[in-house]
Amino acid sequence: MDAATLWQRYQDWLYYHKGLGFYLDISRMRFDDAFVEALQPKLEKAFEDMAALEGGALANPDENRMVGHYWLRNPDLAPTPEIKQEIIQTIEQIEAFSKKIHSGTIHPPQAPRFTDILSIGIGGSALGPQFVAEALAPDFPPLGIHFIDNIDPAGIDRILTRLRNKLASTLVLVISKSGGTPEPRNGMIEVKKAYAGQNLDFSQYAVAITTKDSQLDQQAKSENWLTTFPMYDWVGGRTSELSAVGLLPASLQSIDIRAMLDGAKEMDAATRIPQLKENPAALLALSWYYAGNGRGEKDMVVLPYKDSLLLFSRYLQQLVMESLGKEKDLDGNIVHQGIAVYGNKGSTDQHAYVQQLREGVLNFFMTFIEVLADRQGASPELEPGVTSGDYLSGLLQGTRQALYENARDSVTVTIPQVNPRTVGALIALYERAVGFYGSLVNVNAYHQPGVEAGKKAAAAVLDLQKRILQVIHDEGKISLTDLAQKAGVSDQIEAIYKILRHLHANQRGVVLHGDLGEPSNLTVSAI
Amino acid sequence: MDAATLWQRYQDWLYYHKGLGFYLDISRMRFDDAFVEALQPKLEKAFEDMAALEGGALANPDENRMVGHYWLRNPDLAPTPEIKQEIIQTIEQIEAFSKKIHSGTIHPPQAPRFTDILSIGIGGSALGPQFVAEALAPDFPPLGIHFIDNIDPAGIDRILTRLRNKLASTLVLVISKSGGTPEPRNGMIEVKKAYAGQNLDFSQYAVAITTKDSQLDQQAKSENWLTTFPMYDWVGGRTSELSAVGLLPASLQSIDIRAMLDGAKEMDAATRIPQLKENPAALLALSWYYAGNGRGEKDMVVLPYKDSLLLFSRYLQQLVMESLGKEKDLDGNIVHQGIAVYGNKGSTDQHAYVQQLREGVLNFFMTFIEVLADRQGASPELEPGVTSGDYLSGLLQGTRQALYENARDSVTVTIPQVNPRTVGALIALYERAVGFYGSLVNVNAYHQPGVEAGKKAAAAVLDLQKRILQVIHDEGKISLTDLAQKAGVSDQIEAIYKILRHLHANQRGVVLHGDLGEPSNLTVSAI
Repeated sequence: MDAATLWQRYQDWLYYHKGLGFYLDISRMRFDDAFVEALQPKLEKAFEDMAALEGGALANPDENRMVGHYWLRNPDLAPTPEIKQEIIQTIEQIEAFSKKIHSGTIHPPQAPRFTDILSIGIGGSALGPQFVAEALAPDFPPLGIHFIDNIDPAGIDRILTRLRNKLASTLVLVISKSGGTPEPRNGMIEVKKAYAGQNLDFSQYAVAITTKDSQLDQQAKSENWLTTFPMYDWVGGRTSELSAVGLLPASLQSIDIRAMLDGAKEMDAATRIPQLKENPAALLALSWYYAGNGRGEKDMVVLPYKDSLLLFSRYLQQLVMESLGKEKDLDGNIVHQGIAVYGNKGSTDQHAYVQQLREGVLNFFMTFIEVLADRQGASPELEPGVTSGDYLSGLLQGTRQALYENARDSVTVTIPQVNPRTVGALIALYERAVGFYGSLVNVNAYHQPGVEAGKKAAAAVLDLQKRILQVIHDEGKISLTDLAQKAGVSDQIEAIYKILRHLHANQRGVVLHGDLGEPSNLTVSAI
Repeated sequence: MDAATLWQRYQDWLYYHKGLGFYLDISRMRFDDAFVEALQPKLEKAFEDMAALEGGALANPDENRMVGHYWLRNPDLAPTPEIKQEIIQTIEQIEAFSKKIHSGTIHPPQAPRFTDILSIGIGGSALGPQFVAEALAPDFPPLGIHFIDNIDPAGIDRILTRLRNKLASTLVLVISKSGGTPEPRNGMIEVKKAYAGQNLDFSQYAVAITTKDSQLDQQAKSENWLTTFPMYDWVGGRTSELSAVGLLPASLQSIDIRAMLDGAKEMDAATRIPQLKENPAALLALSWYYAGNGRGEKDMVVLPYKDSLLLFSRYLQQLVMESLGKEKDLDGNIVHQGIAVYGNKGSTDQHAYVQQLREGVLNFFMTFIEVLADRQGASPELEPGVTSGDYLSGLLQGTRQALYENARDSVTVTIPQVNPRTVGALIALYERAVGFYGSLVNVNAYHQPGVEAGKKAAAAVLDLQKRILQVIHDEGKISLTDLAQKAGVSDQIEAIYKILRHLHANQRGVVLHGDLGEPSNLTVSAI
């Protein structure tokens, strides 16, 4: 394509939203007019699906649920007055609660103010708040935030050790839809124990974010926790950043949550327009479809050229992959869909793996995220007329161009600055793009059956552990083969070996005898 | 494969290193004996290449360099007595320097001790130190570490703002092979300015890590910095963690660098054995080759089930992708090689994208990293007989099994705990595996031509910026088309538009007039 044609293509496809100062450029995706035309019927269907979803249809048929995260930023769209009221009141309650925390009206028993937040949650209950804290928290927030987002004992210890002198002024948020997910439940138990270890009454530090009447909700009420904020069955974990899950920690860090909601609302309005070229989420979905042939054949590499957006790719990794990575389509056909997402930040990654992107295996397309404002205030000159912001900008443009010339396609998203409004808009943009893409490839983008299956697989391992410990207790020293046989699971010797190796390493009541690298010759006994 | 056969396969392929307590399991990669036999000649060649490299051959022919990172942990292997002595002395000097910093013998002008480290470096000069700090730094290290690893003005401001009350006790490490790479050079200039702004003499806080006689080395000497540590042209950035680049910050954080070196040395010895089944790096390289058909057809997803190893996948992303992602093979054929790498940590990621891994597009293979020890001390029980460590372990085993049953292959690396010795061993393991794989697919794994090209592309953008600013200065208000023509670059209107949009957003001497979303109608003038 010659320079003039490419320049025309750039202008033809450039999307600009004046209110948000937002640009989307998909001119470096090499689709042609025939492709766009062929996709048109699917796009129409996607627009229709989305309108139905926003109207309260059961867009998540497998789980028999409505999909309502769009209502969170525009409660007027909620399908019932009760839901509308609850959304509005929750936001007000979050602001009122934050104000009381900041002023010290609500304070811990032994200190005038809370100084820190310890957030316990995993997946959608962690990634959004982590991304937003990194992107938007002020340099010196009123409360520092810390996350327990895993069930790793050493990781929990590290956080509790670092907080040990501040535990008495640390507010704990326990975020779990049901309260039954093992990771947050375990985190809560371990944290509660740490509070007890310092003779602190956990309930005076604890806030629950959970579904009404869940196990966690009941516990919070019966133990008289500080307060509870709602989760809803019509908001999935990966789209919950603009519910209490994300808004409460954001508000506690003095992030303007109304601006986040406004930005999302404005982007929602823009992405509701059923015209491809006027709808940035549709343009994104089309680009993804083109890149991966509607089958995820190319990875999506996401590179924001801005340190504070470092976690955006990880946030999108969950949003895109959990939504789209499905075995079956909506008609029950086996399709193995999805789009792999990864990335950190530019220009840093140019000194890491961009070598491969430029020259190596062509299994990806790129998303550049450009932020126009360099910093608050003026920049020193690195050389005459050139600032560090010019370098960052030049590195982005140069890399985009070099990739394109080497047959590597890219999308470029441009925002004026990183602030609550643009972050809200980005969240809304990608939520909608994922929804459209789900329609294009005909999958349910709102469930996650594989996560449930993972929990079950783990539970089976824990059951096996209990059974073999019982046999060892009863039998004394025994070979692994005999142990498997006595436990009635001769086909699971390897799983038994792994369980025992782990228990042995942690002095958990069993000792392995023999060469650890030769499992068939091992015997095991109780300590 | 029935359970008994699979159990036999597990044992047949299980690698165990008693000294390191290290296991590697590749039984869940579905290669057969014929594949292994067919790969044998290539493996022989890889063992020979590695022996030659370690003997001082020019293993990086494009850059006419030796590849010597293996000597760093076994100086006896160095090809000359001078190199051997320099390696030994550098380690001693690092330890001596750290001791003086910790004791306060070397201290800042206005404080009894240094309290913090500000490390300025990018790519290989940042990722290793970041990974190791996260993995191994004690909970309360003698010096906290902070990184400027980008040229983002807002990112630099954030770090300097947060450090503003501690700048007078912050030690600055400037890490750059040449001193000419824009990112660290800019970081240094901005940090120097911050010190000057507090009337602090930067040279009394600064340490250089650089090549002898480089621009940075000369600056450090002429400005009388605290000291300088060497970088070598025979150590690439991505394999520099066990040179001064990684050892100095580690030692300053009280991480046992001798143990890191010992672990790496022991793994080097193990991966020098020219027998597939006795060599874990060869087993890894074979697995990668099998997974991606020797062409990188599958992504490598790396999931350590341990919070402190969170950054290992990002470290490997650079090591693997920058080493293997090459356009040409050693014979000059166009091959577009590489392996894409991504991942964060388990079980956290099971609540994010593992949904797609389990059910979705089959474009990856998995690397599980298992750590046997749960934590220091005993664990509370989450339910009778079950601890959080059991859950974490069960989640790993369950996920591995479920993926395998769904035709998704995996490698499992098991270490007894996360400590300096095992981290050194992991670094050495993957360095060697990358070297072997480079031989298997016949690419130079030790250069990075695309990084240089990226710098040039950015420099061209900055040149263009200067040219158009001159035209605007001379001409006054002008359309973009005319501006491009006057600057003699009518084929680069889009690049000009982007440059102007960025300058306009930062009040940098130009103003755009018209609708920003319609570039062809814009005019520009000087402020």
